[in-house]
Amino acid sequence: MRKIFLGAALAAIALPLSAQQPARPRSAPEIVKSAPASDWVSISPDDLLVMSLAPDAQGKPRQIILQLLPPPFSQGWIGNMRKLAAAHWWDGGAVYRVQDNWVAQFGDPDEDTPQAKPLPEGLAVVPESEYTAPLPQSRKADLATAMVSMVAGDRTHLPESAPDSYADSGLFNNGWPMATDLERIWPTHCYATIGVGRNDSPDTGTGAELYAVIGTPPRQLDRNIAVVGRVIEGIEHLSSLPRAPGNGMYNDKAKNTPIQTIRLASQLPQADQPRFQYLSTQSQSFRDYVQARVNRRDSFYIYAAGSADICNIPVPIRRAP
Amino acid sequence: MRKIFLGAALAAIALPLSAQQPARPRSAPEIVKSAPASDWVSISPDDLLVMSLAPDAQGKPRQIILQLLPPPFSQGWIGNMRKLAAAHWWDGGAVYRVQDNWVAQFGDPDEDTPQAKPLPEGLAVVPESEYTAPLPQSRKADLATAMVSMVAGDRTHLPESAPDSYADSGLFNNGWPMATDLERIWPTHCYATIGVGRNDSPDTGTGAELYAVIGTPPRQLDRNIAVVGRVIEGIEHLSSLPRAPGNGMYNDKAKNTPIQTIRLASQLPQADQPRFQYLSTQSQSFRDYVQARVNRRDSFYIYAAGSADICNIPVPIRRAP
Repeated sequence: MRKIFLGAALAAIALPLSAQQPARPRSAPEIVKSAPASDWVSISPDDLLVMSLAPDAQGKPRQIILQLLPPPFSQGWIGNMRKLAAAHWWDGGAVYRVQDNWVAQFGDPDEDTPQAKPLPEGLAVVPESEYTAPLPQSRKADLATAMVSMVAGDRTHLPESAPDSYADSGLFNNGWPMATDLERIWPTHCYATIGVGRNDSPDTGTGAELYAVIGTPPRQLDRNIAVVGRVIEGIEHLSSLPRAPGNGMYNDKAKNTPIQTIRLASQLPQADQPRFQYLSTQSQSFRDYVQARVNRRDSFYIYAAGSADICNIPVPIRRAP
Repeated sequence: MRKIFLGAALAAIALPLSAQQPARPRSAPEIVKSAPASDWVSISPDDLLVMSLAPDAQGKPRQIILQLLPPPFSQGWIGNMRKLAAAHWWDGGAVYRVQDNWVAQFGDPDEDTPQAKPLPEGLAVVPESEYTAPLPQSRKADLATAMVSMVAGDRTHLPESAPDSYADSGLFNNGWPMATDLERIWPTHCYATIGVGRNDSPDTGTGAELYAVIGTPPRQLDRNIAVVGRVIEGIEHLSSLPRAPGNGMYNDKAKNTPIQTIRLASQLPQADQPRFQYLSTQSQSFRDYVQARVNRRDSFYIYAAGSADICNIPVPIRRAP
């Protein structure tokens, strides 16, 4: 990227003086702000869950918006989650576990006890094979090219490929951070990722008990647990909750944070449906954004890393303008 | 590691039946728990800061313990921090900035205003060159061996070497996670890392305004800012504070969390000095711990990643028994 940066500077010399003014490369936020409308993709209200916690100590509402992961990953659990929301099953549940640098977990605080809330009928039992999917043929060629460049010392080939500590490569796929072993592809555990709580294998969980990541990306959970979505607004209502020691379960139920409702956005009145968009990870704007993230050129930085972790390049998401 | 695991299983077959019982590999916590006393290194009270926030809403005390980074890194700022603690300069300060998935920042909430608290005399002005140090010759040979193995597909060679998205290699050095470009070595920004707030370069900050990482490791800050330590106890008192929007500065000073005192542990009465130890990163126990972290064999896991990020292998630290 240092070379590309230099190249841009040289190109500027040939321009008239007035055009030379913005010599400073655009920052990541500037790139996102100026992305054309055509680079933004609407998120269907069928793919959004609206979660309302009880108001905080000051009486302020606490709303959290979750985006569900698109096919082909984890669709069995996600189908269960749509059924649970339609049945209002989560209403009256709670955030009952908050472990520092790990997860905030929610659902039925009486799970695994005789007082457990019965699940709706007809939930799917989902196999572990839904944790991953075959890598599409179309991505293999891009990856091969990008990884050859990476071996040659160029670590800037995101979004086709990113150096990764947990897989052969990180990459972006339909708006989501993923990883691959060049045969299969799977969603990664990043900050604000939503996954399905489970007991030991072969149990894979139902989707009724969920967690949100609130610390270091726990990438060791990739391929061990179902990723089903991410928090796209209001993660601070989970991440700032009081921690409990040990595994984070509150020993006093009075410390649980009650869930008022969780609804599929498409089942809310039209006027109440939140409308969100993500920046297409196939757009030039996203490519520019990635380059700005891997080579910070803000005046604050004296050193540009030349690469970035897949979990440290959050896909831009906004309320529809 | 799959091969090593199989090797251990085969070796067990030759043992008498009674010795075969513990066939399950030890988990990371089990390895730490059974590490011999000789593998634990005492942390000097000259290298510990004890920070007391105002009690929480329930009146509970909030104590945070910071460990200072050992030489040769960042010693100019760390010297300033010892002076600031000795002068009781932080007393009456505050945590005035909490940005989600980023940092909690503390010091003088009036910094950069006419009401700013004067700094003690004699603080050092420290150059950016203290961000990094030459890679010791002794590590270069280990790294060369480990990296050849990594290229051959073995990603388990921590602590000499770890795959890294931000450098040629991650590695552990004297109890701390670090990164290297094979010429120089520097401390990494992981969860709970403490760094020195600064304005644009060539300003490098004094050490009076500090931040703690409370989210995804912001590795892009490596070599751009001074790492001076880490929170080793009580990080939850910072990570669970209410978030403020934008850059996390509270617009209402009533939302700041007051700092009662910050003291160097060695200046407290002997009986009040906290005593901590870290697991030597050169010990066999630590090597075993790393292997257990990169290849989770707990019954929960169905897939062992075979590698781990340097920030996802926290160095074990405990109160001295």
